[in-house]
Amino acid sequence: MIETHTARDGEREAVPPSPVYKVGVYGATGYTGATLMRLLAAHPNVRIAFATSESAKEGADGVELVPVAEAPLVSADVVFLCLPNGVSGGIAAKAVAAGVRVVDLSADLRLDTAALYTKTYRMEHPAPHLLPAPFGLPELDRTGLPGARYIANPGCHVTATLLALIPLARAGALTGDPIIADTKTGVSGAGKSLKLDSMFVEVYGDVKPYNIGRVHRHVPEIEQALHKLQPDAGPLVFAPHLVPVDVGLLATVYARLRSGWDLARAREAFHAAYDAEPLVNVLPPGRHARFKDVAHHNHGVVGLHEGAGDTIIVTSAIDNLRKGAASQAVQNFNLMMGLPETVGLL
Amino acid sequence: MIETHTARDGEREAVPPSPVYKVGVYGATGYTGATLMRLLAAHPNVRIAFATSESAKEGADGVELVPVAEAPLVSADVVFLCLPNGVSGGIAAKAVAAGVRVVDLSADLRLDTAALYTKTYRMEHPAPHLLPAPFGLPELDRTGLPGARYIANPGCHVTATLLALIPLARAGALTGDPIIADTKTGVSGAGKSLKLDSMFVEVYGDVKPYNIGRVHRHVPEIEQALHKLQPDAGPLVFAPHLVPVDVGLLATVYARLRSGWDLARAREAFHAAYDAEPLVNVLPPGRHARFKDVAHHNHGVVGLHEGAGDTIIVTSAIDNLRKGAASQAVQNFNLMMGLPETVGLL
Amino acid sequence: MIETHTARDGEREAVPPSPVYKVGVYGATGYTGATLMRLLAAHPNVRIAFATSESAKEGADGVELVPVAEAPLVSADVVFLCLPNGVSGGIAAKAVAAGVRVVDLSADLRLDTAALYTKTYRMEHPAPHLLPAPFGLPELDRTGLPGARYIANPGCHVTATLLALIPLARAGALTGDPIIADTKTGVSGAGKSLKLDSMFVEVYGDVKPYNIGRVHRHVPEIEQALHKLQPDAGPLVFAPHLVPVDVGLLATVYARLRSGWDLARAREAFHAAYDAEPLVNVLPPGRHARFKDVAHHNHGVVGLHEGAGDTIIVTSAIDNLRKGAASQAVQNFNLMMGLPETVGLL
Amino acid sequence: MIETHTARDGEREAVPPSPVYKVGVYGATGYTGATLMRLLAAHPNVRIAFATSESAKEGADGVELVPVAEAPLVSADVVFLCLPNGVSGGIAAKAVAAGVRVVDLSADLRLDTAALYTKTYRMEHPAPHLLPAPFGLPELDRTGLPGARYIANPGCHVTATLLALIPLARAGALTGDPIIADTKTGVSGAGKSLKLDSMFVEVYGDVKPYNIGRVHRHVPEIEQALHKLQPDAGPLVFAPHLVPVDVGLLATVYARLRSGWDLARAREAFHAAYDAEPLVNVLPPGRHARFKDVAHHNHGVVGLHEGAGDTIIVTSAIDNLRKGAASQAVQNFNLMMGLPETVGLL
Repeated sequence: MIETHTARDGEREAVPPSPVYKVGVYGATGYTGATLMRLLAAHPNVRIAFATSESAKEGADGVELVPVAEAPLVSADVVFLCLPNGVSGGIAAKAVAAGVRVVDLSADLRLDTAALYTKTYRMEHPAPHLLPAPFGLPELDRTGLPGARYIANPGCHVTATLLALIPLARAGALTGDPIIADTKTGVSGAGKSLKLDSMFVEVYGDVKPYNIGRVHRHVPEIEQALHKLQPDAGPLVFAPHLVPVDVGLLATVYARLRSGWDLARAREAFHAAYDAEPLVNVLPPGRHARFKDVAHHNHGVVGLHEGAGDTIIVTSAIDNLRKGAASQAVQNFNLMMGLPETVGLL
Repeated sequence: MIETHTARDGEREAVPPSPVYKVGVYGATGYTGATLMRLLAAHPNVRIAFATSESAKEGADGVELVPVAEAPLVSADVVFLCLPNGVSGGIAAKAVAAGVRVVDLSADLRLDTAALYTKTYRMEHPAPHLLPAPFGLPELDRTGLPGARYIANPGCHVTATLLALIPLARAGALTGDPIIADTKTGVSGAGKSLKLDSMFVEVYGDVKPYNIGRVHRHVPEIEQALHKLQPDAGPLVFAPHLVPVDVGLLATVYARLRSGWDLARAREAFHAAYDAEPLVNVLPPGRHARFKDVAHHNHGVVGLHEGAGDTIIVTSAIDNLRKGAASQAVQNFNLMMGLPETVGLL
Repeated sequence: MIETHTARDGEREAVPPSPVYKVGVYGATGYTGATLMRLLAAHPNVRIAFATSESAKEGADGVELVPVAEAPLVSADVVFLCLPNGVSGGIAAKAVAAGVRVVDLSADLRLDTAALYTKTYRMEHPAPHLLPAPFGLPELDRTGLPGARYIANPGCHVTATLLALIPLARAGALTGDPIIADTKTGVSGAGKSLKLDSMFVEVYGDVKPYNIGRVHRHVPEIEQALHKLQPDAGPLVFAPHLVPVDVGLLATVYARLRSGWDLARAREAFHAAYDAEPLVNVLPPGRHARFKDVAHHNHGVVGLHEGAGDTIIVTSAIDNLRKGAASQAVQNFNLMMGLPETVGLL
Repeated sequence: MIETHTARDGEREAVPPSPVYKVGVYGATGYTGATLMRLLAAHPNVRIAFATSESAKEGADGVELVPVAEAPLVSADVVFLCLPNGVSGGIAAKAVAAGVRVVDLSADLRLDTAALYTKTYRMEHPAPHLLPAPFGLPELDRTGLPGARYIANPGCHVTATLLALIPLARAGALTGDPIIADTKTGVSGAGKSLKLDSMFVEVYGDVKPYNIGRVHRHVPEIEQALHKLQPDAGPLVFAPHLVPVDVGLLATVYARLRSGWDLARAREAFHAAYDAEPLVNVLPPGRHARFKDVAHHNHGVVGLHEGAGDTIIVTSAIDNLRKGAASQAVQNFNLMMGLPETVGLL
């Protein structure tokens, strides 16, 4: 397992006397927000200007928290939004109008059209003029991210599933058959809001599918990205399962390959796509991606496996709160501001 | 959740003054053996004649244990074999020769030919003259079980996966496309023998695929049963995942249906197959099979879900030590001896 | 491990054609209420007349649920109250006034005086005329329970701690030094109401003391019972710890013994107190009480251990939802109605 | 929760161009050894000269591993010994003879006399001429550590229990009454060697006392240190409990205070003892030490709580693999070599 601290030290030595950006964090006390706060506190180019919470007055390390309504938006160069869907987009619009850059961790800016958003989330889009937004999965396409005024930061399911498919779709290797993503997710993915399904006694000892098929609202987001790479790739069958672990996300993806493709060629495509990526590792043959590879780490891992006939299996694991949320947001921030992509992450 | 105890009371009133069979249990201290011992101790038609262990001298409840070499085989009417593959078959042969009936929980009698056994388990078959043996998955086919001199009792992965496919294969509804079974299994499925992969610290916080694709040795057993029902059904892609829970097994199965089939027709087939089955419940629409439905219970549950296009999803859950091992063995014993199928189980 | 079902069968054969009592369950969907519903459904002398829930309309097994306000109180012979403190006592008073017997699982009837209740729970007592109520810990004193019109059923912490001390206090063996009860409790003890401290992610990986010293509201209840047995026994230091397990409660109790007492004599006192008790087992020397001895069982276990000098250690374990709540309530019901004490429990 | 990384950054800027020591790690693949390897890999004054394993050839990050017999002992300036008791002392003696400094994480050098070692561990001491060794609990007494040729590094139970008692014993505040330490320990404390008691299925759902009273072999080590500070302090009653968590150790300590002492004065003593300590934090009133305060961190925390009468409660938590083993070893190494005490730890 790569211990991130050493690498970071090396990284930092290479950083010249560097700019410090004032950042604001909206929603600093949820699981994602708290993880983000820790990453930002250790980031050499960041000073936390403010952080918000509607309930708490003080965060970890004694950071003062203010309600959103009292947040000094314009005191920040960049704001990170860890707010509920439907709320986040409105703040994003205000920030953009005020010249403050935005990394939005909600779903509000992820879909390209307000119509698809309304169909998926069953509400009016709070800021349709910001669509389509640059999509912050750098391993998919980072061209729009440097200098972006705002970035839509994808979540854990979308990130893990796309990391398993990007090299194949980019090469046009997928058939039109359904692509199956069977995911296993830790409970922190459900957030910190109180609900019976997230109570210890309910989760303990259980493994539970939920919203399987095409009913989960991440399906349109995954297909939107996938079909940009390969328009004739098949539809997604998406089956998330809740497992009794706090953090981690594993997507086991089953896809069929066009004639001319096999596991060896797929492996080449993955290496071509990810060998230069600092935050995605392709596992050697025989190794499966698992929670322990990535929990409490900022990178993701993918493994490739023989299925049957033209079916390939890809295992893809990330820490849902890090590469699936907060550390991806820092990665996007770094790209946005022209910093080395992995500052504060390795 | 259906509380089984009440039902049992009703059941038992219907049982006439009934025979008591002397049974021997080989391998009584493993996780399966210990579960079986508890079920048998509560079974009204059973008296435990002997139980074996190579290490312990006394089991739960103070039952005396003897080494296999000292077991009084012929004192039993029926023996249950919870022994390692390769060892079990030899004892089975000895018992059958001595006129003692056998329920074998090992893999030794499950494959129809010695050749397939040798290819799969990489050893000589210990008792080829017993093949093919009656296959003890009653919901698949119970015709050969009443009066059988020996029965091969399938294990947890095979049972859960086949319960998800039987109604479709029986109706010829499957296409020739690969069938995907993504399973999540509790740690007791790995048995009680000491290995690093089963240590608490290794498993805690992890979700881990293992032997995925077509390399797991249960693949031939599942396909053997499946292709008897529907010879032109596709090959199996089998992907087990270890989860940090003690008992439970969930198979999430993805299958494509022939033209003319849809979810509603599949649901009819499942009800036709299982409505009269005492130990398999078809869940109502919208309910997913999960560990909590079946842990510490003797029955299995299956749920049906829309996928995409012609792809259907079936969730199938059992307690790996019960319907996936020990309680299925009791069910087979009941059928073998002409007892009501669920005595000691409801 | 004693398999309870067999024993029950024996028990039941001995029961003559027996009365069936109509019971009502208030608060049937909490963790205690649901456990009680399962026990009552299997109880041969019980028919469930009604069950209440403010939120759900249907319980497990399809039992219809009504709000408290619509519960047909007088249709029941006996009601079980699994309601919040402060609410329960009022229903108890109404039931008693209507001639309906009561087993109250709340704290409302456990303290002998309204003054102590008000001091402890910081509210007016809802039914002071019912105090003092018969205290439903049969192993402490069952004389007042047969025929009682209402019984205060103690909870898990009180039961486990008292089971560790009753034989010593009854013999006057305790000194006036502080008695230390360090308890470890499963999360279901905190109930099913939504709170951050009971969320999976908060509890996972943690062991956490709470309300330690003399601030926990169970201290007065334990001391009330203890000092009736031995008025000059020392005060209680009570230190509960939340552990990441669903059910189970272990009290590790440290007590000093008067001159003339040692571990051997203490052991005799425990055997004298509990050998005839059907629901408490004294473990043999060298065995420690642990969660696995009691989880999902109706009995408790106690172990005795050498400390230092005059200090003895007693380990005492119960299932917090069973001997610490629901099965104790059934035990009290059986005593109240003149049934064999363990009907429905062994 | 205090995030250590930020602090480290500040720390490191203060470090002058600094020496690099070659270190060898004996036993690099156990849970402690692997944690130590990660800490050392990130330590700016360390270069790993070699690491040993009898089974593996390659550690995390691809570090080459050699058997002990092939380890180039003299190539190191300092060796860390994560070896079994009885083996470690022999290597320590060889290293010292060769002029290589030693931090011994086994128990071999912790007791002051060979006689007490033989009585406690029931074997001959492997290196009696090294006794008594400097005892590496810096918060107890760091005077003997700078420049030491070898240091006995105490383990998790001893560290957590002593951290709860040092300020009181140093002030002579303890009475002669038994001192009770009720500890809760994560499973990694039992090490990585295969045993049934450490298997997932055995531990899951259980809380289990073991070796309670005065039979645990850490009792003499704790009392040895305690009675040096206050010779007339009472004996220790020590009660460890295994909990189903991977890392963490919580000691809940109950002690009686001499006349003139109360909680407020005790709190002053703790602040006097620890306010200048970089790796021990005294929690504010009302806060209890818990696993989540310290898991995956290098520091410990202590909380103080009112008991009854003269009885005080101290909660003391550490990560058993860090402040209870590997990070304490680094702290001792830093002191030994004249480095700032917390290099590589904050």
